[in-house]
Amino acid sequence: MKNLKEKVLSTDLIFGGRFLKIWRDEVELPNGFKSFREYIKHPGAAMVIPETKDGKFIMIHQYRHSVGQVFLEFPAGKKDKGETTEQTAARELQEEVGFKPGYLQLLTHIHPVIGYSNEQIDLYYAKDLEAAPAMKDPDEVLEIFEFTLDEILEKLWNHQITDVKTQIGIFWLQKLKGR
Amino acid sequence: MKNLKEKVLSTDLIFGGRFLKIWRDEVELPNGFKSFREYIKHPGAAMVIPETKDGKFIMIHQYRHSVGQVFLEFPAGKKDKGETTEQTAARELQEEVGFKPGYLQLLTHIHPVIGYSNEQIDLYYAKDLEAAPAMKDPDEVLEIFEFTLDEILEKLWNHQITDVKTQIGIFWLQKLKGR
Repeated sequence: MKNLKEKVLSTDLIFGGRFLKIWRDEVELPNGFKSFREYIKHPGAAMVIPETKDGKFIMIHQYRHSVGQVFLEFPAGKKDKGETTEQTAARELQEEVGFKPGYLQLLTHIHPVIGYSNEQIDLYYAKDLEAAPAMKDPDEVLEIFEFTLDEILEKLWNHQITDVKTQIGIFWLQKLKGR
Repeated sequence: MKNLKEKVLSTDLIFGGRFLKIWRDEVELPNGFKSFREYIKHPGAAMVIPETKDGKFIMIHQYRHSVGQVFLEFPAGKKDKGETTEQTAARELQEEVGFKPGYLQLLTHIHPVIGYSNEQIDLYYAKDLEAAPAMKDPDEVLEIFEFTLDEILEKLWNHQITDVKTQIGIFWLQKLKGR
């Protein structure tokens, strides 16, 4: 593999918002060219695909203000301090849809925003769900659904599931189920 | 569908970097709760899966400073002002790997960062490639490869393709090829 790595000449926190923090690094490329890279430092996140006892999958509708539309998603959220993504997946499953997982399996990890964020999302599959009190954040309003894998795949190929973590989760679920 | 839409109470540009611009909106949720949403406004982007005359697919290695690692990707980039994403796809194909597409087909569109950006990426498939001078940006250093679909799928299932636009493009390519 060619050497593609960039050397960091300086790094600065240039914006600290309530939620978003932006760094700007000056870098030197392997070709000697100097440039600036601006990016968000993100704590990492987890998503979970919960399977019910009758073989359906729990999804949520959530309004996403950045895009201005409602998305069909699997439960997900950012890591809290000190958490593993397995703990995040279990916590978000309980907070958003009210279940504890009896079984939790890591499917893969993804990088959604390589142009301007270090965010990594770990994708989990969960089954053997036990009811547990949901504890939604007050700024999260959700609608909960259960669908079969066929119903989900139909929505995906009809371009109705454009959230990347959810779409990739479905492909890995399909593989897991030998479909 | 439940009403999940949030009402915008105020909107402010709170950070204008060289590349990233952040808005903060105060919103009122359907449950009456007020909150703030911080997000990046993005011009939109296009990715293109180029098929060579002998049925291989062109991919690139690119170092992504935000994550600090080299990614295997399909050619992609942000829309320039006034461009359609079809024009962006054709331009990036020429700039990054040195081909003009004789045929370009939209596969789907995705939203990679619904938590904090309005970014949309349109995914294209290209064939009937004609050589054209590559004109890389001076701050892009790339390594170019050609792989069969089987080679690409092996890398995907081995967790070696974690860039979301690339991974989703592969699944849609697999569908297009009836695999």
